[in-house]
Amino acid sequence: MPETIRITPIGGLGEVGKNMTLFEMGRDAIIVDTGIMFPANDMFGVDYIIPDFRQITERDDLKIHGVLYTHGHEDHIGAVTHVIEQWPGLHLYGTKLTMGLIEGKLREANLIGKTQLHVFEAGDTLEVGPFTAESFHVCHSIPGCVGFAINTPYGLVVHTGDYKFDNTPVDGKLPDYARLAEFSKRGVKLLMADSTNAEVPGWTSSETVIDAAFDRVFREAKSRIIVATFASLISRVQQVVEAAKKYNRKIAFAGHSMKRNVDMALELGILDVPKDMIVDLGDIDSLPPRKVTIMATGSQGEPSAVLSRMASGRHKIEVQEDDTIIVSSHPIPGNEETVSRIINDLLRRGADVVYDPVEQVHVSGHGKQEDMRMMLNLTRPENLLPIHGELRMLKAHRKLAVESGMPEKNVFVVENGTVIEISQRGIRVGERLPGGYVFVDGHGVGDVGRAVLRDREILSQDGFVILVVDVDRRNHKLLGNPEIISRGFVYLREANELLNKIDGTVKGTVKKANGNSRRALQESLEDNVAQLLYSETRRRPMIFSVVNER
Amino acid sequence: MPETIRITPIGGLGEVGKNMTLFEMGRDAIIVDTGIMFPANDMFGVDYIIPDFRQITERDDLKIHGVLYTHGHEDHIGAVTHVIEQWPGLHLYGTKLTMGLIEGKLREANLIGKTQLHVFEAGDTLEVGPFTAESFHVCHSIPGCVGFAINTPYGLVVHTGDYKFDNTPVDGKLPDYARLAEFSKRGVKLLMADSTNAEVPGWTSSETVIDAAFDRVFREAKSRIIVATFASLISRVQQVVEAAKKYNRKIAFAGHSMKRNVDMALELGILDVPKDMIVDLGDIDSLPPRKVTIMATGSQGEPSAVLSRMASGRHKIEVQEDDTIIVSSHPIPGNEETVSRIINDLLRRGADVVYDPVEQVHVSGHGKQEDMRMMLNLTRPENLLPIHGELRMLKAHRKLAVESGMPEKNVFVVENGTVIEISQRGIRVGERLPGGYVFVDGHGVGDVGRAVLRDREILSQDGFVILVVDVDRRNHKLLGNPEIISRGFVYLREANELLNKIDGTVKGTVKKANGNSRRALQESLEDNVAQLLYSETRRRPMIFSVVNER
Repeated sequence: MPETIRITPIGGLGEVGKNMTLFEMGRDAIIVDTGIMFPANDMFGVDYIIPDFRQITERDDLKIHGVLYTHGHEDHIGAVTHVIEQWPGLHLYGTKLTMGLIEGKLREANLIGKTQLHVFEAGDTLEVGPFTAESFHVCHSIPGCVGFAINTPYGLVVHTGDYKFDNTPVDGKLPDYARLAEFSKRGVKLLMADSTNAEVPGWTSSETVIDAAFDRVFREAKSRIIVATFASLISRVQQVVEAAKKYNRKIAFAGHSMKRNVDMALELGILDVPKDMIVDLGDIDSLPPRKVTIMATGSQGEPSAVLSRMASGRHKIEVQEDDTIIVSSHPIPGNEETVSRIINDLLRRGADVVYDPVEQVHVSGHGKQEDMRMMLNLTRPENLLPIHGELRMLKAHRKLAVESGMPEKNVFVVENGTVIEISQRGIRVGERLPGGYVFVDGHGVGDVGRAVLRDREILSQDGFVILVVDVDRRNHKLLGNPEIISRGFVYLREANELLNKIDGTVKGTVKKANGNSRRALQESLEDNVAQLLYSETRRRPMIFSVVNER
Repeated sequence: MPETIRITPIGGLGEVGKNMTLFEMGRDAIIVDTGIMFPANDMFGVDYIIPDFRQITERDDLKIHGVLYTHGHEDHIGAVTHVIEQWPGLHLYGTKLTMGLIEGKLREANLIGKTQLHVFEAGDTLEVGPFTAESFHVCHSIPGCVGFAINTPYGLVVHTGDYKFDNTPVDGKLPDYARLAEFSKRGVKLLMADSTNAEVPGWTSSETVIDAAFDRVFREAKSRIIVATFASLISRVQQVVEAAKKYNRKIAFAGHSMKRNVDMALELGILDVPKDMIVDLGDIDSLPPRKVTIMATGSQGEPSAVLSRMASGRHKIEVQEDDTIIVSSHPIPGNEETVSRIINDLLRRGADVVYDPVEQVHVSGHGKQEDMRMMLNLTRPENLLPIHGELRMLKAHRKLAVESGMPEKNVFVVENGTVIEISQRGIRVGERLPGGYVFVDGHGVGDVGRAVLRDREILSQDGFVILVVDVDRRNHKLLGNPEIISRGFVYLREANELLNKIDGTVKGTVKKANGNSRRALQESLEDNVAQLLYSETRRRPMIFSVVNER
């Protein structure tokens, strides 16, 4: 009897299957993607989030044969160094650009010798352990994107990766319609499809609509042009290069990841820039402003990236009157406020700032409702597992599939950690695995949990107050004046009245305690001062007391 | 010679003129609106922001004759209690609903006797001191909205308030086209016009398009219907009441501000609900779920409001399978992430959640580009001062006006605090006043400044560590083990290794110091432990040391 196939999206946050998916067939397994998630605004101090893959590492019964990558965006490859630390020697598979980006990460983490990298071309069939995965080209907002059709005894499991149907892609590589249609003939047991734009009607525009907007902006720009976009968006870099070439401008690259990726893409032949067009960022001032284009990082408002530093005057590229700055991306949810503030700051410095919707200088890389219907109609799956999206989008994807004629019971809206089982008896929702996501903060992986985050939240709201009190161990009287340390609460130098009241409360508390245990005195100091501060200020700073008996 | 007219938008954050505008004519002045701003996500612990009106209060030469209110939204009336505390006895002017909302605020702050309230009707001409202000009705997303045409010797200054051209308003009160056209005949020297949607093409939809969406949702709902919207959106409440009436449902109101505003609006006759339709929230469980509608607060994701507490299971309204929850608002910029999380949480609890764009259950209250062109063409102003919007929107408004034929030099894009002067010689940009905005945190008005916010930010990222060290005053040796207090840094119970290293560093530092001053020892303790923690964790918690000599 053939084995049961188990499919498990690993990770948390309801973004189902975006970051890491485990495919099991008996004792054998492969993984698709190992991405990171970006922290929400209230996950204070967290740099990024990785899926909690302990549930895989702790299973001795499982043999992982390799990781198959759909494309090179951070939310699909970003956790690769954590994965390789866990499973040295693991085989990784991706297209040229994807593997170039992964190689860069592994090299920076000194892990390059610890793994085996395999480059394939879209359309190749990969034999990984007992798995046969047929890759197929899809269009998205980075070159070299694929999906996978994984063969099982019960039919194909098709994983779309991130996709849109772009009929005029920048690199000329069309969506592999023929392959998708062919899958439908062979029988698709399960379609796992991107749901990001399931709430948005219509079709997603082609990347090439941006060319027209770039052309207009380049034609009219009076001085330097600075374009900020994702460092991995190599096809956008190519579009900017073409516009710069046409209008006889040189190009410089700013920002560590932008330079690293451009170098890598040039080396791999994915990016085509005439050698004499590229100038060093240090040399742009020797050129007439009308001859300068700069590509920069920071389009998501990352505080340490180029755009944000330019906006606040902390970068060597000083914004000048008449500079044209193109923000060629859409803010990822949660970044809207920061990106908007940067646009305002750049305008305030006199630049002309161009962004969608003022000009269509960016389009989504994810298919909208009509793209999704197209994917369903091309592959004609028996079952659908909406992936890549928050619960609201997965449900919208289900609604759309049901409207297109798929029985509701054949659509599986599940959260990360839920196992989908395919066997002779059909397909069903299996167990829910424990675990969720792991916070990475600096060097720390997983040492920041809910409790620490809650403390950070309290501190961020009202700060803290520390009382240092010396008490005479014989007569229990206060020695000297209490020392008060506080940050993030009020501006103490202007809070004399409040300080006097704290002083009074401390003195009263010590007097009343009169020989209680040190611990009890600490507690009543903290309680009484907390009460005082709340009634005076309606704030609840964290309060600690240090009692020294002398 | 007639006086110079000075117009100054007070406040900060680039939202020009949204919150408070000062009109001066010689020694006489009036104010339009006294609103609050909402804090950005990185203004930790700040409840709200008020314009810094010290620049007005400190001027002895000025006689403020009154405040004219355009409408009752928080960003236009919210600072009223702060204003009245500053200027007891000030006269306030607004339409019925606006004054009802203001009265509620003054009553809660025990300020009701300290001021004089004047209710007027849209279309009335107000004589306030030497000023003649002609009010005119505009449509927005709250009833009772007006703009003002202020007479000056140089022509009219028309302030639109927040507006859109709604040709089928819920309350039947059309925009006052005739009046606007008449102003154009008399000569509009300056138009001050809402810029919020200046980046968005097309017309803003009428509030009544929501009726069709409500009807569809009410017809299909299988169980209870819960509608969340702004507590001040009385016309939306009326729309829900009409839908509930049609489908034979009762209605309950949840949330303090919702109940307060509904009671007030019923009393004033602005809201019309049959007495027997209203049920108490405590009684809904005795009704069949198909007979229940609940209107609730919290559509912006405010953590203490009803919707957010329902989503996290902290409210007495328990979300049930088959409940239909309508989120009848758009998230204000910065709230997108929180609102989205609430929608996901409600879906996770089994509710059917309806929101724009899934159904058109909310429309913007601000005119888009075509509304703005219409306003320009109706009033035909000589000059334009774009107001109500971030700098990016003000500039988009300028672009639109210039495209519509206005000379660029006649459009004034300025930031808050900038004086616009109108005199015999024409109109010009005057001085920039100091001051900006004032943070309100609990009871504290202005005691939280940049420094405290910066500390809160650091604490929110990496927390703090406090070292309490006892040293023998004679031989300078460490007594006992150092005590370590920390919050928001790492989970200390699982950080034994790190604690040992801190211990070691403290001991080494004390040894090396060997009798340095207490202050010097503190500094080297803090420096050395900071260095240790950064190299171990790549984090920078705040570090304090307390050295006790015994």
